[in-house]
Amino acid sequence: MRVLVTGANGFVGAGLARALPALMPGISALTLSDLALGPVPAGATAMAGDMAEPDFLQALLEPGHDLVFHLASLPGARAEGDPDLGQRVNLTLPLALAQGVARRNPGARFVFASSIAVYGALQGAVDAHTMPRPALSYGAHKLMTEILLSDMTRRGELAACSLRLPGLVARPAAESGHGSAFMSQIFHKIAADTPYACPVPATARCWWMSRKACLDLLVQAARLAPGAASLVQPPVLVATTGDVAQAVAEVTGHAPQISWGADAALTRLFGTLPDLHAPEAEALGFRPDADLITLTENALEGQLP
Amino acid sequence: MRVLVTGANGFVGAGLARALPALMPGISALTLSDLALGPVPAGATAMAGDMAEPDFLQALLEPGHDLVFHLASLPGARAEGDPDLGQRVNLTLPLALAQGVARRNPGARFVFASSIAVYGALQGAVDAHTMPRPALSYGAHKLMTEILLSDMTRRGELAACSLRLPGLVARPAAESGHGSAFMSQIFHKIAADTPYACPVPATARCWWMSRKACLDLLVQAARLAPGAASLVQPPVLVATTGDVAQAVAEVTGHAPQISWGADAALTRLFGTLPDLHAPEAEALGFRPDADLITLTENALEGQLP
Repeated sequence: MRVLVTGANGFVGAGLARALPALMPGISALTLSDLALGPVPAGATAMAGDMAEPDFLQALLEPGHDLVFHLASLPGARAEGDPDLGQRVNLTLPLALAQGVARRNPGARFVFASSIAVYGALQGAVDAHTMPRPALSYGAHKLMTEILLSDMTRRGELAACSLRLPGLVARPAAESGHGSAFMSQIFHKIAADTPYACPVPATARCWWMSRKACLDLLVQAARLAPGAASLVQPPVLVATTGDVAQAVAEVTGHAPQISWGADAALTRLFGTLPDLHAPEAEALGFRPDADLITLTENALEGQLP
Repeated sequence: MRVLVTGANGFVGAGLARALPALMPGISALTLSDLALGPVPAGATAMAGDMAEPDFLQALLEPGHDLVFHLASLPGARAEGDPDLGQRVNLTLPLALAQGVARRNPGARFVFASSIAVYGALQGAVDAHTMPRPALSYGAHKLMTEILLSDMTRRGELAACSLRLPGLVARPAAESGHGSAFMSQIFHKIAADTPYACPVPATARCWWMSRKACLDLLVQAARLAPGAASLVQPPVLVATTGDVAQAVAEVTGHAPQISWGADAALTRLFGTLPDLHAPEAEALGFRPDADLITLTENALEGQLP
């Protein structure tokens, strides 16, 4: 099985590249792609370049792939600030990639990292009947890509599965462009036993997922029976920032030194999330982190004593 | 006010080109565009060419427009048979057009002929909460364009309004590529007092709208207060083919000579439509044909004694 991971230098992509050989036996060739790449795991092929360049995209796709994890994207806040780049990375490129993959290997599995940003402002619990109304270009482009991938799947050109992912924790503090960065900072700052001015209140209600849980979802999406689902809203943990800080304190043994803020825009986008009901995804084997303690252990993997 | 109509040689576009000067006073320049154009109304400028050609698109957009009616599209059945052309005409082109218009005149009004094909198979009554699940590429591309236009409107780049239009009657018998062609044929064949083998049964329940009602919707969309609505599901008449045939008989004085068929695919797509509740659109002044007699008179406009 020939596998391609885009955005392989990112938080999720780098984790997937490391974990994939153990999670999915039977990979005969693993290609990792990003604008730039550090050292790659043994046996993997690194292809650094800009997929918006037709020559690079063609070289990348040339061997043909049986499975593609398309993780590359420009985060929401950055895309909002640079709409042309946002559209190129978050809309034009996924479409060109999906169609290039399908041309070389019709019916190839294509796992797409979509986002809960497709929903926009939410009222009431989220389930399979919730109407997506993106409030940012990032979410609009993700939603448009989902629609095209579902149509390509219907036509038999690809076997796509779009996963609507929440903000993941704990992203490296250095990563920028994510409006939801505060969610990761809560973990890092308490683990480092340092003060943190969190921009949202302790009552902010967010959707939480660790990278480890996300990797399991991606692999589960790759393993779905053909036709099982071209669009999946995976289950998540729903909790307040205050409750998460408490769990991080419990796991690390550090008392939180957080001053809670009141940023209305961030709270509206990431901190007023309702319940999420995802029985269809659970029936397909998709699982969230088990609880806030597990979330914390997964989020701080490698950083705990 | 500088106005552009695309698809101006089509059934709706040609009607709009003729009716626009009377419906919208204050037009200082009217440009009509299509792949080919017959004689255009006095005072209008004809620009025949392929908007997929960058040079033509640039020339078309150069003067800048205050209002664009984007009606050009490849019908669903044809797009399904030629997916590359379908994507070029129904997705790539509207995006390029909208962005070209916005670049030259930010905030311009952009009325987009979307389609009820965005819904796919329908169960239960349709209202503002109905989830679109396109069953054909045509509907997928229309839905993707709606999303981009709503996002551009949010950003202030355009003041777009997408109208989800049903199949219109009575299209010329010569027009091809519309799966819903039988809806128009019922009018033409009874008016001509000739037999017709209709592919769907007399109990097929369809959504009906005349071109005249559609033109009023398009103009109403162009007149909306900025920010009123970037997406509108206008009200339609809901009736069976049998009831419509009866109304046509009443208006024309000809007894219908129709043998009703049982095409499962066409019936599923166009002949099993539920009720449609559109109070939001009605509050904004959007109106369907008043009744089946009015629908028939409008549909056969110019063909009745």
